[in-house]
Amino acid sequence: MRNIKDRKEIVIGLLGLGVVGSGVAQAILERKDGLAGRVGCPLRLQRVLVRHPDKPRAVSLDTGLLTTSADEVLNNPEVDIVVELMGGEDPALPYARRALTSGKHLVTANKEVMAKHGPELVSLAQSKGVELRYEASVGGGIPLIGPFMGDLAANRISAVHGIINGTTNYILSRMAAEGLDFNIALKAAQELGYAEADPTNDVDGKDAAYKLAILATLAFNTRVRPEDVYREGIRRLTERDFRYAGELGYAIKLLAIAKEREGAVEVRVHPALVPQESLLAKVSGAYNAVQVEGDLVGQVIFYGLGAGSRPTTSAVVADVLAIARRLYQGIGPVPRPTQDTGRAIAPISRLSARYYLRMVVADRPGVLAQISRVLGDLSISIASVIQMEADEVSGTAELVLMTRPALEESLQQALREMQDLGAVTEIASFIRVEA
Amino acid sequence: MRNIKDRKEIVIGLLGLGVVGSGVAQAILERKDGLAGRVGCPLRLQRVLVRHPDKPRAVSLDTGLLTTSADEVLNNPEVDIVVELMGGEDPALPYARRALTSGKHLVTANKEVMAKHGPELVSLAQSKGVELRYEASVGGGIPLIGPFMGDLAANRISAVHGIINGTTNYILSRMAAEGLDFNIALKAAQELGYAEADPTNDVDGKDAAYKLAILATLAFNTRVRPEDVYREGIRRLTERDFRYAGELGYAIKLLAIAKEREGAVEVRVHPALVPQESLLAKVSGAYNAVQVEGDLVGQVIFYGLGAGSRPTTSAVVADVLAIARRLYQGIGPVPRPTQDTGRAIAPISRLSARYYLRMVVADRPGVLAQISRVLGDLSISIASVIQMEADEVSGTAELVLMTRPALEESLQQALREMQDLGAVTEIASFIRVEA
Repeated sequence: MRNIKDRKEIVIGLLGLGVVGSGVAQAILERKDGLAGRVGCPLRLQRVLVRHPDKPRAVSLDTGLLTTSADEVLNNPEVDIVVELMGGEDPALPYARRALTSGKHLVTANKEVMAKHGPELVSLAQSKGVELRYEASVGGGIPLIGPFMGDLAANRISAVHGIINGTTNYILSRMAAEGLDFNIALKAAQELGYAEADPTNDVDGKDAAYKLAILATLAFNTRVRPEDVYREGIRRLTERDFRYAGELGYAIKLLAIAKEREGAVEVRVHPALVPQESLLAKVSGAYNAVQVEGDLVGQVIFYGLGAGSRPTTSAVVADVLAIARRLYQGIGPVPRPTQDTGRAIAPISRLSARYYLRMVVADRPGVLAQISRVLGDLSISIASVIQMEADEVSGTAELVLMTRPALEESLQQALREMQDLGAVTEIASFIRVEA
Repeated sequence: MRNIKDRKEIVIGLLGLGVVGSGVAQAILERKDGLAGRVGCPLRLQRVLVRHPDKPRAVSLDTGLLTTSADEVLNNPEVDIVVELMGGEDPALPYARRALTSGKHLVTANKEVMAKHGPELVSLAQSKGVELRYEASVGGGIPLIGPFMGDLAANRISAVHGIINGTTNYILSRMAAEGLDFNIALKAAQELGYAEADPTNDVDGKDAAYKLAILATLAFNTRVRPEDVYREGIRRLTERDFRYAGELGYAIKLLAIAKEREGAVEVRVHPALVPQESLLAKVSGAYNAVQVEGDLVGQVIFYGLGAGSRPTTSAVVADVLAIARRLYQGIGPVPRPTQDTGRAIAPISRLSARYYLRMVVADRPGVLAQISRVLGDLSISIASVIQMEADEVSGTAELVLMTRPALEESLQQALREMQDLGAVTEIASFIRVEA
């Protein structure tokens, strides 16, 4: 590191020049004066690691800046701040480690790396006296990491409810608004660039689970790993579920939930029925929202675009600015005392929730009685039986039930037993209700 | 200041032990271990300035902590951080100056002091090498100052729309939901402690103007003073306006708006029609929300409780923690480069908006033609004429107009001319529309 007293500039090395990388490079170049005004001296983009230097890009950079050699960024003595925007675990993780080990500050938008290795990288940064910032890893440009680390730090957080995957929220919004089935809505999202050709990471909740692990780790001061998150995707939702949910006064959202339960932390990503009048139900399209319950602050909600080049650039450049302002002033980072409370992860089996069940049953007398008996024997009360539509050709009817709060393991047992009833053709969906 | 290397504690002096002061004192005492864990050493409440030491309080403090002498806090060599929670300008402003001048860090929730004297106090703090934090001055526990200073710093902000006065939002929510008139809803708010006996500061928009001045100063990097804010309160709204607005698809909210207009800054607080489907329209009761438009981030919204002891305590203690963590580590504050762009304040007369007008007119032919002529001559187009309710006894009818975008000065001229028409009995309301 150079002498911090007479800084004329802060030097940035970029890893990756994809959609977000191009946005960040463009912002650093185009906002040169404004950013220099906020820091005290200019930011200079010194090197950009790319795989294909000749590929056409959204940003026009001096080709001399591009390199295919990671060493030219990571071993470059001039680079103060490394900005990692490659995504994925490999080689982003080894590069992040090398940057921190060689005393460079690191800004990353990498949710996978931070969810899996965040605490390790934070410790490494602190041991090297450098700063690691990752605001862009969750919720795009919505301030979340900052608020959890600082503004909400006086609170005991009891719950976090988030819509933190824009792709699935877009798909669910289309299904709800237009009565589309999942595959049609997915295809529309793919055509518009909201969903990838292989949509697994989004629609199966993996992306949301990474982000939830990052938020829950901060909210509860304990290590939450992606594999700790109970996870269900949105593939099995149908147009009919949206219709019934609407009749019952609910929207269906893919929620990422972290809650305190008897000292342990419950972390889960799954479709949920949320009351139509709640603000989370109004979050539509590619927007994200995170609702936090703190014992002092009460309920706060953060809302905005959770992905995309420009919102993500907003968060990445803000992180760069925060580090650069300190560097210009010759002031070191403030380490966070580690506070790993080592809480257990609460098992999904002991969750208590209300459930929405849709099933196809034989259209004959006594079926509801059989189903009620299975549920009653497992101490699950039925709150309402909503609708039956008979299909005369197949001799079946559709039955929608809402339960009162019940244990997940009891409900799962009930589903198994009901499937064995001759009168039940199919248990088409079950969705948890979040009030 | 003591040696920062071997800190065993961070010492707090409190000015004021009212509703918020008691909450802050209680949080510091009751959360001792949690807060110490976040800082690295304990926080100790050393002295609390009160007017009446014998008054019963919501928090039980060692009476030895209480003092009626400001010197015992401000001249106390042990005190590291002064927390000012007295409210009002005098003596809070001279105390704030004295605290900073004597090298103490300052946390304040005082919107009036920060709106009127914020930039002066920030400069004073920087010249003394101490930190001034004021997250609680706007939006209670909702993170706003932090995001504007840090997370959104890469953006060019184009607009801020806020519901930042909980009292008026509560009153308007009751009027909308129950068809109450203003005075009835105000009385209900007073009985529940949401409004003060003298409600002027809230219902005439002064409180919101203070908060808007603070936010606009940060958002646009220019000095905005409370007297720069164009201001109309909610007293003249009636139950009928809510009814008509609802029929037109709008809610009525007291909005605080700061926008860039041709290089200048437009700042105004007034009732506004907002589309029922917008998230701002859904903010009800004592909740606050601030919507920000940035060129990178797009639209972000921050939502939560904007007042009250516990939410405000959340923000005050977070500010104390941020300073205390630095002090414990022996790290100085990072000064913000001053960036006063010296923008002009855009005059309200040149505002372009759509308007809702409700007037009582003579119930006879040709009246609408007269009104249309006045508007047309001033280049104001009518978008819709909504309703006429004839009152057979008085021979009058009610007329509700929505205009297309028009200049404020033209509309004001039209209102004067229409008032001179013999056929117009009363111009009962005009409300700007914010899309």
